[in-house]
Amino acid sequence: MLQIWALAGIAEIRTGDDLVQVIADAAAGALADGDILVVTSKIVSKAEGRIIEASDREAAITAETVRTVATRTSESGHVTRIVENRLGIVSAAAGVDASNTPHGTVLLLPEDPDASARAIAAGLRELLGVRVGVIVSDTLGRAWREGQTDTAIGAGGVRVFEDLRGKSDAEGRPLVVTMPCTADELASAADLVKGKASRLPVAVVRGRADLVGDVDLPGARSIVRPAERDMFRLGADEAYDLGYAAGAEEVWHEGGRSGS
Amino acid sequence: MLQIWALAGIAEIRTGDDLVQVIADAAAGALADGDILVVTSKIVSKAEGRIIEASDREAAITAETVRTVATRTSESGHVTRIVENRLGIVSAAAGVDASNTPHGTVLLLPEDPDASARAIAAGLRELLGVRVGVIVSDTLGRAWREGQTDTAIGAGGVRVFEDLRGKSDAEGRPLVVTMPCTADELASAADLVKGKASRLPVAVVRGRADLVGDVDLPGARSIVRPAERDMFRLGADEAYDLGYAAGAEEVWHEGGRSGS
Repeated sequence: MLQIWALAGIAEIRTGDDLVQVIADAAAGALADGDILVVTSKIVSKAEGRIIEASDREAAITAETVRTVATRTSESGHVTRIVENRLGIVSAAAGVDASNTPHGTVLLLPEDPDASARAIAAGLRELLGVRVGVIVSDTLGRAWREGQTDTAIGAGGVRVFEDLRGKSDAEGRPLVVTMPCTADELASAADLVKGKASRLPVAVVRGRADLVGDVDLPGARSIVRPAERDMFRLGADEAYDLGYAAGAEEVWHEGGRSGS
Repeated sequence: MLQIWALAGIAEIRTGDDLVQVIADAAAGALADGDILVVTSKIVSKAEGRIIEASDREAAITAETVRTVATRTSESGHVTRIVENRLGIVSAAAGVDASNTPHGTVLLLPEDPDASARAIAAGLRELLGVRVGVIVSDTLGRAWREGQTDTAIGAGGVRVFEDLRGKSDAEGRPLVVTMPCTADELASAADLVKGKASRLPVAVVRGRADLVGDVDLPGARSIVRPAERDMFRLGADEAYDLGYAAGAEEVWHEGGRSGS
């Protein structure tokens, strides 16, 4: 049996707030060994002061961007930029977020969400004496499917994959390619109780204590597939355009039909 | 509070088995109005007889494929085919599955997973008198992120999106682009109790009765983004190659450098 609930009573988070204390107060003694806390990245960003003037939004997206993956301009002229950010995460607008922020401001993602998750996990373990894991979650779009799901962008003290490679199915055959991303599944499960319009930024997942381990287990950074191994490292239009230019260049230098 | 548990005692499913009766027996009176059942597509396929000889696997993948999205050959010569199948779902091997099937056989996805989900939901509502929703789930890989998550490929009587467009955040600003894919989040949450190596193909999610509605609500087909609106409708290499050929062709006809 898995139980998931949101912590009530967490007020607006401000720069410098101690999230370990905030979460401990909201949990009010209800946390137990093996619980996994799923913390919305937005409150981590706020506590860390990752807040800037909204007028700097486009510049902030550019600053957070390592590589543009795809762009699309809608009929109304709105430009969507899908980019890889400095954490390796591919998302719209590099995670720069204008919802649920003070008027006139936008939020950047936490500087290092794995470090944030580890610090919260270590802090709660020390303060409360319970061995909990922490996931920092963000809402991401996907290729091929409409809508968004919450995913793990930081993890501390939680195994992010359930590694079944080497295990066997019920017929004894190896489950060679199966590696469920439990961290993303936990983040998605937690979103079902947190909601977007309400202020419920922290959920507790109880029932998968087997996934909780040392605070310095590999973080959510290990979920990111390096671009060079990714079949979708570029948007189709962007890759087509690069290919077109290369093909044209090649034949141009060969002299084209008249040069053959 | 969300509660999620797997139904114990479901034996190996064979062609022709009545999944409504199997699930009702396994649930043993524990289902209530508003519960959402997440059923692994594998047992739906088995009940529907979607089983073929393993020697026909490559032909089956081809038959299930509408469009090849990307292919990659590993150093060991193993070819991964990412394809769009006849349901619009982009996945490896068109969902043709060789794990947890009788020796020498592979499974195709259900013929129409939304219809299967609706039939199970309607059947359980009639047999047990409880208003449940049903999701048929499959394990899918993703772009940009390692590992897999369980996602919804069929839905009956469950809202697949929590449509927040038009709603406001806590500061009163519209959440314009937010449309959480609750069906995928439910499928992922259920995977946390089902496991892959064990025989726990059905989970119950209790606590989101607000998502349960008429059996003929839009199905999981509505989650699929049409290729023409998808920035990642082709793999980067495939799009580059198409562009290269087009660029070369164009300049060839122009006569290249010597023709300018």
